[in-house]
Amino acid sequence: MVSEEGKSAHALRLRRLGIDTYQEPVIYMRRDCHVCRSEGFEALSRVQVAHNGIGDGTATSGHSIIATLNILNTDLLKPGEAGLSESAWKLLGAKEEDRITLSHPAPLESLGHVRAKVYGKRLGEAEMNDIIRDVAVGRYSDVHLASFITASAGDRLDTSEMVALTRAMIAVGERIHWSRTPVMDKHSIGGLPGNRTTLLVVPIVAAFGLTIPKTSSRAITSPAGTADTMETLAPVALDIASMRRVVEREGGCIVWGGSVRLSPADDILIRVERPLDLDSDGQIVASVLSKKAAAGATHVVIDVPVGPTAKVRSIDAAKALRGRLEEVGRAVGLNVRVVMTDGSQPVGRGIGPALEARDVLSVLRGEAAAPQSLRDRALRLAGEVLELSSRVQPGSGYASAEAALEDGRAWRKFQAICEAQGGMREPPRAGYTHVVEAERAGEIVQIDNRRLARVAKLSGAPKAPAAGLELHTPLGAPVEKGQPLFTVYAENPGELAYALAYVEGQPDILVIEEPI
Amino acid sequence: MVSEEGKSAHALRLRRLGIDTYQEPVIYMRRDCHVCRSEGFEALSRVQVAHNGIGDGTATSGHSIIATLNILNTDLLKPGEAGLSESAWKLLGAKEEDRITLSHPAPLESLGHVRAKVYGKRLGEAEMNDIIRDVAVGRYSDVHLASFITASAGDRLDTSEMVALTRAMIAVGERIHWSRTPVMDKHSIGGLPGNRTTLLVVPIVAAFGLTIPKTSSRAITSPAGTADTMETLAPVALDIASMRRVVEREGGCIVWGGSVRLSPADDILIRVERPLDLDSDGQIVASVLSKKAAAGATHVVIDVPVGPTAKVRSIDAAKALRGRLEEVGRAVGLNVRVVMTDGSQPVGRGIGPALEARDVLSVLRGEAAAPQSLRDRALRLAGEVLELSSRVQPGSGYASAEAALEDGRAWRKFQAICEAQGGMREPPRAGYTHVVEAERAGEIVQIDNRRLARVAKLSGAPKAPAAGLELHTPLGAPVEKGQPLFTVYAENPGELAYALAYVEGQPDILVIEEPI
Repeated sequence: MVSEEGKSAHALRLRRLGIDTYQEPVIYMRRDCHVCRSEGFEALSRVQVAHNGIGDGTATSGHSIIATLNILNTDLLKPGEAGLSESAWKLLGAKEEDRITLSHPAPLESLGHVRAKVYGKRLGEAEMNDIIRDVAVGRYSDVHLASFITASAGDRLDTSEMVALTRAMIAVGERIHWSRTPVMDKHSIGGLPGNRTTLLVVPIVAAFGLTIPKTSSRAITSPAGTADTMETLAPVALDIASMRRVVEREGGCIVWGGSVRLSPADDILIRVERPLDLDSDGQIVASVLSKKAAAGATHVVIDVPVGPTAKVRSIDAAKALRGRLEEVGRAVGLNVRVVMTDGSQPVGRGIGPALEARDVLSVLRGEAAAPQSLRDRALRLAGEVLELSSRVQPGSGYASAEAALEDGRAWRKFQAICEAQGGMREPPRAGYTHVVEAERAGEIVQIDNRRLARVAKLSGAPKAPAAGLELHTPLGAPVEKGQPLFTVYAENPGELAYALAYVEGQPDILVIEEPI
Repeated sequence: MVSEEGKSAHALRLRRLGIDTYQEPVIYMRRDCHVCRSEGFEALSRVQVAHNGIGDGTATSGHSIIATLNILNTDLLKPGEAGLSESAWKLLGAKEEDRITLSHPAPLESLGHVRAKVYGKRLGEAEMNDIIRDVAVGRYSDVHLASFITASAGDRLDTSEMVALTRAMIAVGERIHWSRTPVMDKHSIGGLPGNRTTLLVVPIVAAFGLTIPKTSSRAITSPAGTADTMETLAPVALDIASMRRVVEREGGCIVWGGSVRLSPADDILIRVERPLDLDSDGQIVASVLSKKAAAGATHVVIDVPVGPTAKVRSIDAAKALRGRLEEVGRAVGLNVRVVMTDGSQPVGRGIGPALEARDVLSVLRGEAAAPQSLRDRALRLAGEVLELSSRVQPGSGYASAEAALEDGRAWRKFQAICEAQGGMREPPRAGYTHVVEAERAGEIVQIDNRRLARVAKLSGAPKAPAAGLELHTPLGAPVEKGQPLFTVYAENPGELAYALAYVEGQPDILVIEEPI
């Protein structure tokens, strides 16, 4: 009797409130809800939410998630109802009016391993697996994730722990197997605006008959991610089957990684690493290598830009990271080559999806005005990939890549890849532009990458793909008073005005030093 | 022109959604909101919210907070509206229809110090002050707080850093000054159900003419806090002026610390320490000592219960903590004495506000059936306070305290304090009870404090003050089959049924071992 009463008291009807809490699953319940009171749930409690399907809720689908509780003091919900955040709604596969039951989640045993790490213990493979399994199914709240990330940062993971973390992250995701070998890949450690070498490296490498199935990300905090830029030229949201078709036909692809879920634990960790602004070697190594291994790569070239506003700030730090990447790579079956590059200023001229795509097209088409910084960087990386594949002689990579670019092989391969992904298109042009001019003569001695990126975002990028800016004067360039410094592009006059209002208040985005 | 447009584009009308996110301030905005788009705000962005008062928003009140952004995909808000979580609503002093403007918060410079700590650097006074000032005004999100707590845990703070942290926490709160000296205080490191010695120690110490202005907390995860228990006997939500009147008249008080805001940074850190279950020495020391110093204490006795399910689990750990408490205490002007006590089982018999209050009354009234564990523990702590004050000879504290209890001085003082706080009352009695009996004969060899506390919470404590349970058989007691083990109390039949359903599924809350 008593237990029956207890049981039915748990069932609630779902209502979609449409609240996007980024990725943390949240459940909303009325303060006077009988389940809250009887289970002793309070705001910020972690609650296990089981989906019972429609109807009377007797047939349970067995599917359940862990969510954080927010309590409602108003009538957004009726008695007997519960709401879910958008991410929780999707995770549960919920529909309006579905029934759910609630309970206390089993204790999060793997938090004991995180505490052990806080107290300086080494974590083995079993412990890392426990933690990453719980992370991947959403059992860690943002607060738990922040604690794990912090406890693992500051060089607190040794190489064997990085190997364990990388293996654990591979184990919880999908993994693609290719019938051919070698399978090449490249990755740039982020943070440099306009660094769209991927769109050049992939067609050059594929033009040599090599396999290079590239997955890229969309922008998180930047004005454009590689997937956003590629999307102005061809569709990128392909599932694994379509991606496989493209690669089998053309050798390479450039698709959005978000639709293939190669390293779900990493996707979750990244959302907390970002607000913490805490990039530790361990997390970088596990994040990059787990995604490459899951994508089925055997050989990977990793571009590490070094500069005062880049993720990696000194040559020493870059060398330490290189050692870790190579060693952990070996342990998980990846042949890794690290290339250190200049990270002191944006690559190319455009910042924003379509503007960056135009830079890429101009290099592929061999136009005289093509940005040399992007061209040179891409050739260097493509050369390293070619050499690592043993398809060309050591030392001849750059020249081989340049030949494929100059004789049009790379351009033809790029068009073929775009067609295979669903059809090539011209990047859109913005209807509203404004040229920002130098207020005095002198030399450009400093460029603030961060604030330039912010101007591009305020103008609408990446949501408005044609928005952004074009930089006319690189570091070291001499300028006259009134000479164009950069052009701002927007898709409507409001966003243009908004970006320019910001520019007005920031006179030193480009620092001009007068000649002595 | 441009800047004017930019400015007006920021203004939004407030609507109260009534969502309790515990303490983290959250702002809710529509996905299609022009401010979201133009400022580049995304879910989980940190947003500066400035309150402009009512009307056209031209006169700004200057008051602003930092909130985390959640984005709405539905029509919970109309275009031009923004919602706030309950804590943000209170922090801003908002009213329905008020205008707000939004902007990007200034970069959180003190996060650089947290990162330095992650990388193993020592933090000085200036750095700790920067961090704690930002924490106290709500500039840290839960994710930032978790990172700071984790980076400071695992013995990563040395004594000088603990001193800096404690001083920083004192500096950001209110501080009470008393005209008399010494000012005594006591504190118990939490985690032991029924540990209500405060209600006995305060009247005994005050009966000796000493000053002991005690602030206590309400339950966070437990079935009763000291303030909840005291509230069944007298009002506890006094402001600083009323607290001062009580102490000037009677020498002591027992009030709720939540209404006096002595250590606001600590209140914020605690909400994240709890889900992390990470009690580091540094945080305990700073938390306890900052509150005592802010309350104007000069001499403090700290009770450290040691036991397998207590916060402090070994004598060695307790000794290390004692050293830190004494040393940091000296540095911030507090004379600290640490007393280690038994933390292996609940203190007294009752668990729940009114039931614990009855235990206290029974000791004060000198009833023969009064729980000895509570009486003895309280006399020991009161004796230590008396000796530390130099009011009695070393070694005679316990006997002096016992004399004050036995001759009725403590009982009269307790009644006087209750009257001064607003009037004494009898604790309420629960209308619904059920006795749980032993299913077999044997000896009580183990008591699960956590699950006992859970039964008390399911029965309605602390919200229902008369709810909870009374334990009849301590550790080591012999029992017959059918003998009462504990009685569950509830204020309505539903909650009683719910608590008993839980008990049915947990046969080993009290483990009975049969005689061999």
